[in-house]
Amino acid sequence: MTTSWESIAQTAQHHRDATLAQINPPLPSIDTLPLNSTPVPRTVLTDSELHITESAPETLISHLASGTLTSTAVTSAFLRRAALAQLLTNCVTELLPPAALARAAFLDNYFREHGKPIGPLHGLPVSVKEHIGMEGLTLDAGFVAWHDRVAEENAHILDVLWAAGAVFYVRTTQPQTLMHLETDNNLYGVTVNPFNRNLSAGGSSGGEGALLGMRGSCLGIGTDIGGSIRSPAAANGIYGFRPTSYRLPVSGWSATMQGAEHIVPVIGPLSTSLAGIALFTKTLIDAQPWRREPSLVPLPWNPHPQLATLPSGTKVLKIGLLLDDGVVRPHPPVLRALRSVAEKLAEVEGVQVVEWTPYRHEWAWTVISSLYFADGGREERDAIDASGEPWRPLTTFILKENGNVKALSVKEVWDWTWEREKYREYARKWGDVDVILCPAGPGVALPHNCARYWSYTSQWNLLDYPAVVAPVTKVDPAIDLAKPDYVPRNEQDEYNYQLYDEPQRYANAPVSVQLVGRRYEDEKVLEAMAYIEEKIGLPWAEFV
Amino acid sequence: MTTSWESIAQTAQHHRDATLAQINPPLPSIDTLPLNSTPVPRTVLTDSELHITESAPETLISHLASGTLTSTAVTSAFLRRAALAQLLTNCVTELLPPAALARAAFLDNYFREHGKPIGPLHGLPVSVKEHIGMEGLTLDAGFVAWHDRVAEENAHILDVLWAAGAVFYVRTTQPQTLMHLETDNNLYGVTVNPFNRNLSAGGSSGGEGALLGMRGSCLGIGTDIGGSIRSPAAANGIYGFRPTSYRLPVSGWSATMQGAEHIVPVIGPLSTSLAGIALFTKTLIDAQPWRREPSLVPLPWNPHPQLATLPSGTKVLKIGLLLDDGVVRPHPPVLRALRSVAEKLAEVEGVQVVEWTPYRHEWAWTVISSLYFADGGREERDAIDASGEPWRPLTTFILKENGNVKALSVKEVWDWTWEREKYREYARKWGDVDVILCPAGPGVALPHNCARYWSYTSQWNLLDYPAVVAPVTKVDPAIDLAKPDYVPRNEQDEYNYQLYDEPQRYANAPVSVQLVGRRYEDEKVLEAMAYIEEKIGLPWAEFV
Repeated sequence: MTTSWESIAQTAQHHRDATLAQINPPLPSIDTLPLNSTPVPRTVLTDSELHITESAPETLISHLASGTLTSTAVTSAFLRRAALAQLLTNCVTELLPPAALARAAFLDNYFREHGKPIGPLHGLPVSVKEHIGMEGLTLDAGFVAWHDRVAEENAHILDVLWAAGAVFYVRTTQPQTLMHLETDNNLYGVTVNPFNRNLSAGGSSGGEGALLGMRGSCLGIGTDIGGSIRSPAAANGIYGFRPTSYRLPVSGWSATMQGAEHIVPVIGPLSTSLAGIALFTKTLIDAQPWRREPSLVPLPWNPHPQLATLPSGTKVLKIGLLLDDGVVRPHPPVLRALRSVAEKLAEVEGVQVVEWTPYRHEWAWTVISSLYFADGGREERDAIDASGEPWRPLTTFILKENGNVKALSVKEVWDWTWEREKYREYARKWGDVDVILCPAGPGVALPHNCARYWSYTSQWNLLDYPAVVAPVTKVDPAIDLAKPDYVPRNEQDEYNYQLYDEPQRYANAPVSVQLVGRRYEDEKVLEAMAYIEEKIGLPWAEFV
Repeated sequence: MTTSWESIAQTAQHHRDATLAQINPPLPSIDTLPLNSTPVPRTVLTDSELHITESAPETLISHLASGTLTSTAVTSAFLRRAALAQLLTNCVTELLPPAALARAAFLDNYFREHGKPIGPLHGLPVSVKEHIGMEGLTLDAGFVAWHDRVAEENAHILDVLWAAGAVFYVRTTQPQTLMHLETDNNLYGVTVNPFNRNLSAGGSSGGEGALLGMRGSCLGIGTDIGGSIRSPAAANGIYGFRPTSYRLPVSGWSATMQGAEHIVPVIGPLSTSLAGIALFTKTLIDAQPWRREPSLVPLPWNPHPQLATLPSGTKVLKIGLLLDDGVVRPHPPVLRALRSVAEKLAEVEGVQVVEWTPYRHEWAWTVISSLYFADGGREERDAIDASGEPWRPLTTFILKENGNVKALSVKEVWDWTWEREKYREYARKWGDVDVILCPAGPGVALPHNCARYWSYTSQWNLLDYPAVVAPVTKVDPAIDLAKPDYVPRNEQDEYNYQLYDEPQRYANAPVSVQLVGRRYEDEKVLEAMAYIEEKIGLPWAEFV
């Protein structure tokens, strides 16, 4: 006798709701879900809770390390706001109130006894995407059929963050197959954008994205093989970082295609601050995770400034500006944000902005999408069909409508891998450019089930370049007008163009940019982004 | 009309002989090939040629950099000795006298004009295995059918060495498929061991091995996916180093299975000195080859001592001694050399020798040999059959008699790759051990076509550990007795055991050891080997 997928989903949601019911004091029920959820916390949470949850992680850590805030206070505040974020955006698979509060109490006690923090993240709540294994908890990776998989031990990354003092208090949603730039599965439904519930939260780390956009977390863990950290960061007005592969520990997650190495998925942070991104990455690398996980490269975190300086001490930064990949033209707000940033930067002493000519970005998509599902998507089909759950629209898109998904022979996989290596001659295009400034996607957060063009992010996965996404501004329909006279270049371009027929649909949506560096130049990318923010005063809008 | 494979081979050999005929003054003909070739150079070469060619690379470089030797003198001497090595051991595919002498003259002229060397290898002749691309020259990789492949440009590694001042003067032999621990192909025949022509020169970089064993080179380039640098180094009484993958540039070589990444082949040095190994590796890494070849990891050469020190300044070195992998027991001379080295080391202050318990080495072979030819050996079969050339015995062994060679599905490749990753939990066995001291093979140089047990070297390829081979002593049949009462454990063990029924067959053969480090600890392995040599006065025999 098989349990129906609907019944499994209902059980999962009941469990989630039961963990929400543990929140104390309980949240009021929300009768009408507003279009824009971001103002709601002000009407529900205490001043103290608002103050804590709207602080940057580096600020919280500083208070936790000096004893001016307890982990119990911080964790309690984030638990309540995460619960509220769930009610408003459907971004949570479960809260962990008893475990998190016990952990917080332990850390507070440690601090009282020793008079110092236990590690660099002492007492900080960190949110975790569901498919990253947490001992004794589910590991469904978005498949109904995997609902009864349970992690035997913590993922390596959680052990390292735990040793650094983190508190795990919430687990977040992801799409069926993990291979959407959207967050939609049959266990929990669709995660919606905090700024506009008619728009997507991005994906696949969209649970993290919406949770952080709601300030139900200030630092979370996502994963990225084609944009899955950067898409939700961009959609929700927060920061997201895809590091170079093999720098951060990945062992202990659950996903299809274990053992596939053609395109390497990575783990990385989403945060409400750029400093949070750097703190997360540095903390993990400083722990020398390569000692336990030998697939990792023993590149220490480089503490030295990576940008050159003029004799005056002013930094030198040469930026390649990529407005358009030549295949799909980004929507007006994306182009406006990039142009404005570039114009402001051109006025900064030591900064030079040059045009970056895209090199065969269409071919890059052919290569990467041929390698994504080299078994023809067999594992995903089997995992979906095992429970009889319906195919979500973007699963159908990426597996069935993507002409590059084929069951390859081993030889064909080698040939495509060779094409990938040849394409990495992209390295020769850099010259003395330090970073590439480019769109984080073909538009801002898109309407649900419309994220069909991955190349603005997947491009850098193919090349294995580190890339950070940062918020800049918001869509203003009065400025970001549609271009009725634009003539699309191709079918994809036309699809994307038509999505922007009514700018009003996107009102208030965050607009972000992406900054990309050469392979392994993770530290340089983050340094350059921080310098850009400092010099031109980014972001130019409030997101909370 | 197809050319027969015999005719193609004849053409290749004629070309090789024509390049030998360019040597000036010409070599005398050798009427009777002796069992042991190593004394012959003394009867043929001038004192100056002997002195130069028997100097270590670091000594030559020092003289070249100070102007006390010209590159022309050094190159001429190595050209003559390489030609002689070819006559005695059949290790060369072609000499490059005009190009090499022109290059040497250019460098000598540079030195006269600028009063300083052009780079860290100024004027040093470097030998090159044939399948490493050299612009305008063949790139047959040991297949008759590939005889007309010509490199369009130099392999990346050659460009870097060239910029450092190297002189390329000779190209060396390799086996059919490159996948033997022997050197035997249908274009050039069999390369024999300089110390005993009835024994193998090892492989697949056996042309390099025999050439360096004959001192026809002091520094050469080999490649290794299962022991192909270390086997010929051990067989010929020289040094060989398999670095961690993705540290040295590999782009521009020719081989089957381009794009396969399950087991990563590496490039590395063979040298007559340990300092030559370090010099080669450091020179390449210092050139930051990752800027051009983005698959490489940007780990700078670490110039700092890697071993800890006692307050007295004495180094601390903890060595795991692996005498026997529990599958195939090494031959008596190998065990004697390891035990002698370990005993001497145990007397050194700061050095600790502990037993290293092998962890599932038999399984390691199953994993690696399942991944070597994931297409079932299709590419190799096609490349062999295209010319009608015969299958060499060890090609038949590795492709047809190795039960693990199967045409896998993509999913099966992922599963084996996953097994590889799981097996890398070997990292957890290290504790505070610095290096593993172990055999370089199941015996010394074996009789031709008998190298059927790869695990003493392939073990470290699977784990991607850096490993250096160093000479220790020679076989002494009066001490290294057969063990008539030994009861073999299994079929492989019995095969190997029976090869040592007559110790006299191995008289005079070099005996080497292997030192292995954790992944990416290349510098530490070389430092530890140098320290061991210094403290116990290795090697304990003359090899020239």
